[in-house]
Amino acid sequence: MTKIIDPYGSELVEDYTKIIKDFGLDVFTPTTFPEPNRIMRRGVVFAGRDLNIIAKCIKEKKPFYALSGIMPTSPQIHLGNKMVVENLAYFQKHGAITFILIADLEAAAARGVSLEEGRQSALDFHIPAYLALGLDPKKTIFYFQSENKDVVHFAYEAAKKITLNEFKAIYGNADPGRIMSAVTQVGDILYPQFKERMPGIIPVGLDQDPHIRLTRDIVSRMKAKKFFAPSSLYHKYTPSLDGSIKMSKSKPESCINLPEDPKDVCKKIKRALTGGRDTLEEHRKLGAVIEKDMVFELLKQHLIEDDAELDKIYNEYKSGKMTSGELKQIACEKMTAFMNDFTAKLEKHRKDVKNLNFVKFS
Amino acid sequence: MTKIIDPYGSELVEDYTKIIKDFGLDVFTPTTFPEPNRIMRRGVVFAGRDLNIIAKCIKEKKPFYALSGIMPTSPQIHLGNKMVVENLAYFQKHGAITFILIADLEAAAARGVSLEEGRQSALDFHIPAYLALGLDPKKTIFYFQSENKDVVHFAYEAAKKITLNEFKAIYGNADPGRIMSAVTQVGDILYPQFKERMPGIIPVGLDQDPHIRLTRDIVSRMKAKKFFAPSSLYHKYTPSLDGSIKMSKSKPESCINLPEDPKDVCKKIKRALTGGRDTLEEHRKLGAVIEKDMVFELLKQHLIEDDAELDKIYNEYKSGKMTSGELKQIACEKMTAFMNDFTAKLEKHRKDVKNLNFVKFS
Repeated sequence: MTKIIDPYGSELVEDYTKIIKDFGLDVFTPTTFPEPNRIMRRGVVFAGRDLNIIAKCIKEKKPFYALSGIMPTSPQIHLGNKMVVENLAYFQKHGAITFILIADLEAAAARGVSLEEGRQSALDFHIPAYLALGLDPKKTIFYFQSENKDVVHFAYEAAKKITLNEFKAIYGNADPGRIMSAVTQVGDILYPQFKERMPGIIPVGLDQDPHIRLTRDIVSRMKAKKFFAPSSLYHKYTPSLDGSIKMSKSKPESCINLPEDPKDVCKKIKRALTGGRDTLEEHRKLGAVIEKDMVFELLKQHLIEDDAELDKIYNEYKSGKMTSGELKQIACEKMTAFMNDFTAKLEKHRKDVKNLNFVKFS
Repeated sequence: MTKIIDPYGSELVEDYTKIIKDFGLDVFTPTTFPEPNRIMRRGVVFAGRDLNIIAKCIKEKKPFYALSGIMPTSPQIHLGNKMVVENLAYFQKHGAITFILIADLEAAAARGVSLEEGRQSALDFHIPAYLALGLDPKKTIFYFQSENKDVVHFAYEAAKKITLNEFKAIYGNADPGRIMSAVTQVGDILYPQFKERMPGIIPVGLDQDPHIRLTRDIVSRMKAKKFFAPSSLYHKYTPSLDGSIKMSKSKPESCINLPEDPKDVCKKIKRALTGGRDTLEEHRKLGAVIEKDMVFELLKQHLIEDDAELDKIYNEYKSGKMTSGELKQIACEKMTAFMNDFTAKLEKHRKDVKNLNFVKFS
């Protein structure tokens, strides 16, 4: 098996190697797609399914789609959402017809957010936030799950194609609410193909892979319908600032939200786990242990676009010329700029959210 | 436990006694409701849940509803459907706001009938047939499941209120398609209460009891929503003409469909299991064994409205004065009249099906 490429040697690599094997994914290499984006170039995007068919569509300018969903609960998103949007924006720029569905039905069922609250939350925050992260407002198609009868009707059909035990094998458990949500997501994932069959790519976090597997299974059982099985693209988690594998709201001191007051974020960064040595003298002599440095990981995954700039920091930090305090200072400045930019764009997009391209349903 | 009243002593009683116990139903007595209809008076309607609340609504002229569903598959219904409609018509006459839902979504998922085919089938046959059986076209409210977003949205919520094991305990199995159908039916059963809470009664065949139990369970877990748990009313199966407990399409020679050519039905009746004796002499002496007579059961359940007329036949047949050949002749004549009347009414209602009261959804 091809080794996952992480040019900056994150220690999290081995876990992902196991996931690739267990999930039956293909390893992603930066040469898979033309002009790879920041996270594709740096081994953050690390795996996928059926990526060649998408690469071919890009190369031959054939129609394909990219799709993701918004769960309109609390008005905050996280860095994992940011990476999904960056990948969507990448495919959009390379010709994908781009869909964002608002999973208001699922938010209502799973989180007790009423459809009206979910709708408002999506319009006030989530949709503007996704645009602020780089989607083209003129080229992105939005719909509300609760309005999309075609998706819901398809969910009923999809449910008949899978047994309870097969469902359990994919999801681990099979409570009725989970089944309803899952088969509806199958409908969402295939929705852009309802009118015209075409390949599609779904950039997801790893925890979303069961939906991809379920959709691919169901497509294979509806051969006569000739759907393309969805391709998918996976990125690593942004690690928690304390060094554990996934940033999580359950540890607020190690978690960065979007948006969040840059001052608060800088405080968290100052307390983050780094690869700096115990004394300055030792640091100058041995250099930083970058593989264990969560602040460098933040710069690499999110804050520095330019490879040369990142390489320079990498070399200076690794050699001991740059201290972890200086690294944190850079991260804090970059994060502040990012947050301010994000907040400004959020406000701007909020103003004309009504003029976006929402699918109208009869 | 009160014994089930069957004044004509059908041998099928004991099975139903067991069902009442196993399902936890209340025994139905003809005095439960005012002016009981034919099948209520004769022990064919034999059990229910929470019937007193409905009796109280009737007595005090308080709002309540009656509801049933149509599965728009093949253009035929059976005698079980006929009894459901007769009970609906009874409650409609006694003040119930009456709903008929077309389960096109379920027909699509479970039977592969497209929504368009299901819609056409309902308009061309099932709805006119239900009206032909006695519903008031001006007072009955119809809707298509696939158009009723409120019901589908509620289904997602309902699914969260039940675990897989609880579902299995009610339905025996829990395949994803069955779960989707079942929670959607919970939405249907409660739909008339979405705007205003009120008691409701669902006349069903015994095989539909799981939906009632599931709905009642889910209502009890949504206490804050203050739904009335649905009341329900059960009728016995029309036995197969060969004497087994339920008429079934799997034995076409012992099964009567609506509509069916009266000549064919008469042939089937002529071959039916009766309680007539082996020789005329013996018959005159001992009389018929009415408890085993499927033709008398047909007269009792379906073909003779007037109790005095039925009693007369009962006495003459039991005494041996009437032969089973004569009984079959009566049944054939009554059935022919019924089928001709049904077919004529079907045609009439088919013509103005578009003008019925269909719920409009935005």
